[in-house]
Amino acid sequence: MGGVSTTERDRVPKQDRSRATRQRLLEAAVACLAEHGWTGSTVSVVAERAGVSRGAAQHHFPTREDLFTAAVEYVAEERSTALRDLFPEGAAGDRQAVVAALVDLYTGPLFRAALHLWVAASHEDQLGPRVAELEARVGRETHRIAVELLGADESRPGVRETVQGLLDMARGLGLANLLTDDSARRERVVAQWAALLENGLV
Amino acid sequence: MGGVSTTERDRVPKQDRSRATRQRLLEAAVACLAEHGWTGSTVSVVAERAGVSRGAAQHHFPTREDLFTAAVEYVAEERSTALRDLFPEGAAGDRQAVVAALVDLYTGPLFRAALHLWVAASHEDQLGPRVAELEARVGRETHRIAVELLGADESRPGVRETVQGLLDMARGLGLANLLTDDSARRERVVAQWAALLENGLV
Repeated sequence: MGGVSTTERDRVPKQDRSRATRQRLLEAAVACLAEHGWTGSTVSVVAERAGVSRGAAQHHFPTREDLFTAAVEYVAEERSTALRDLFPEGAAGDRQAVVAALVDLYTGPLFRAALHLWVAASHEDQLGPRVAELEARVGRETHRIAVELLGADESRPGVRETVQGLLDMARGLGLANLLTDDSARRERVVAQWAALLENGLV
Repeated sequence: MGGVSTTERDRVPKQDRSRATRQRLLEAAVACLAEHGWTGSTVSVVAERAGVSRGAAQHHFPTREDLFTAAVEYVAEERSTALRDLFPEGAAGDRQAVVAALVDLYTGPLFRAALHLWVAASHEDQLGPRVAELEARVGRETHRIAVELLGADESRPGVRETVQGLLDMARGLGLANLLTDDSARRERVVAQWAALLENGLV
């Protein structure tokens, strides 16, 4: 576009800068949602937090819905990758530790941000279908990782539901951690259910 | 107060009317929270829905926080009573049915309303401590009912955590039901976890 000639050498750093800006916006968006909720989270607030102009933010994400759904998806992918990296040996590892790490997915700022988005989506028409689709996608991916890291054989009856129930419990524990630090109780519940789960995975 | 003399006969119906008004306001507040979220739920909106004047609503509940925390507590108590009435035989009954009924506590308008309140409380200073206290109170009561109806002996190691984890799972299932009808999946998960639970209650 335009008359400015761009050498290969110039173009690559520009793409990098654009990617870095996008990434900063996504991370700022999740932090902002987690701290201030949906009502307090606008494109302008996020742009300012990321140190990016409002115009640049809107170039990357034309609407508020675009920005926040992309942000939750991006951070969820980051967390999934980190979780896989934590257990390179997969099913061969310590199942109790895997259960604890899966539960940890639901106690940080990402879960908090996602929760705000879900709750807003439950009564905002333009968010509803997008967030439902996002939730299904992220849910499927988390389920896939859980099955893999737990070494669960889903061809056996009940194993799929055992893993699903575990992730539902993790989500509930995330909710219980929203207003108070629930970590001591959570640790005991996780230890007990990790033991009970052994019966549901074989 | 004032110079109007009130006979016993007049006074009782007035108390009844006042109680009925209060109850209408509480029920309208939960329905309103569940449908419109915290931002869309004001004392005026609830008063109109309940067919009560704004002044009368404020007589019963001086602040918005008073109205909505009282509403969630009131409806939670109603649901608890209904749950106890459903299983008059308690632990002698069908455990699978008890688990399903406990999970049902988290899939209706009450959970939806409570969720909106919790999420708002996570970033609104005047709500935070009140809702944390309310959540703890309602949580303890639900735990007590679960222990009773499941016939769980909490003096045995791990039993307390088994019941807690079940209620955490129920909460997570409620969240999974927020944007889409999750009932078919939920039924399968509940059946499997009710079976796993047996090992954790003995």
